[in-house]
Amino acid sequence: MKKAVILTSGGLDSTTVLAIAKSRGFKIYALTFDYGQRHKRELSNAKKVAKYFKVAEHKILKIDLRCFGGSALTDNIKVPRKKNLKSKKIPSTYVPARNTIFLSYALAWAEVLKSHDIFIGVNAVDYSGYPDCRKEYLKAYQKMADLATKEGIEGKPIKIHSPLINHSKAEIIKKGMKLGVDYSITHSCYNPTANGLACGKCDSCRLRKKGFGEIGLKDPIKYVV
Amino acid sequence: MKKAVILTSGGLDSTTVLAIAKSRGFKIYALTFDYGQRHKRELSNAKKVAKYFKVAEHKILKIDLRCFGGSALTDNIKVPRKKNLKSKKIPSTYVPARNTIFLSYALAWAEVLKSHDIFIGVNAVDYSGYPDCRKEYLKAYQKMADLATKEGIEGKPIKIHSPLINHSKAEIIKKGMKLGVDYSITHSCYNPTANGLACGKCDSCRLRKKGFGEIGLKDPIKYVV
Repeated sequence: MKKAVILTSGGLDSTTVLAIAKSRGFKIYALTFDYGQRHKRELSNAKKVAKYFKVAEHKILKIDLRCFGGSALTDNIKVPRKKNLKSKKIPSTYVPARNTIFLSYALAWAEVLKSHDIFIGVNAVDYSGYPDCRKEYLKAYQKMADLATKEGIEGKPIKIHSPLINHSKAEIIKKGMKLGVDYSITHSCYNPTANGLACGKCDSCRLRKKGFGEIGLKDPIKYVV
Repeated sequence: MKKAVILTSGGLDSTTVLAIAKSRGFKIYALTFDYGQRHKRELSNAKKVAKYFKVAEHKILKIDLRCFGGSALTDNIKVPRKKNLKSKKIPSTYVPARNTIFLSYALAWAEVLKSHDIFIGVNAVDYSGYPDCRKEYLKAYQKMADLATKEGIEGKPIKIHSPLINHSKAEIIKKGMKLGVDYSITHSCYNPTANGLACGKCDSCRLRKKGFGEIGLKDPIKYVV
């Protein structure tokens, strides 16, 4: 069985991607980051997701992005509530170089596992405008990765799959439902309450609710509003 | 004063690069990784280097590459002693995706600091044949970085400088001496003794000794052999 490293946040997108990789016959190595995020509660969801899909291994790496700060998710900056979802401006929830760091760890793990497949749940349709969620970024990352690794220069490149890149949230949810994803164990909110309820107002909540709404379904998680 | 993030290992190359950045008028932000390396003693040298050059800030990040292993520097694999230095084969001291991970953290810090300059001490002449020390790798990393960051897509790319890429060890040492580097506070050995002496036999020691030898100087650090 071929191995794949899946970046797993416990959120809607990465869980769907995990289900896709599984449906393609990969043995799953899930990689999650405890990076000092405000919404640390996503870690317990990542654990639930890993368990639900019976992954071969789940690593939760503790890395400190709070030591740099510079984002509403890792610093004392308020999470915005009213961003126009169509705006092209990069919001304050953008975490500098986050996906680049995450993918680099995935690359290291894949190389050691002799896996040639990494899956990441970025999408460039219903998203917050982060630079590191775009197709051109991933293409450039792939080129760099091919030159960065022993496997790459020996002609066995590690492929970075982003099967959701062109999908809307609604399409992602439909796809996941078909593959048996239980979205009640996922979590997307950037600013949950102390007891873990989703705020319903941050970009991430609004995009998620919009996605479920568009296909006439009720999101199975609980919201404050 | 412009700020620059310098990847600082406490070794000969990165110390020379720090001196170069300083000579170009940058305010120095030194970044060091406690990544589970066998030669952890380089961390105390990185601190000495940061102090010697009176850097504006020195961060030592604890990241766990030992959790992946796969290298003689981070796993229970013996450090090789007799590699032919001209061999093109990638040695077991190669750490999967190490420079990619290090540069990605530097990118994050630079973006938060509003710095547009990162310095890394890789060189592709007297080196161990690591894929992530080559010019083509750095070029691809730069392209990816330009697309990965807010600063990059807003037209203020973060430049990755590798001023030693075409230099031999001897040339690097000569350059550093001119800039006032005290090489006695640096450390290069992959396999030091418990009391911190350099082994004299690993690739890194041999390349270093060869460099000093070529310019008729004695390396100021102590070796077992």
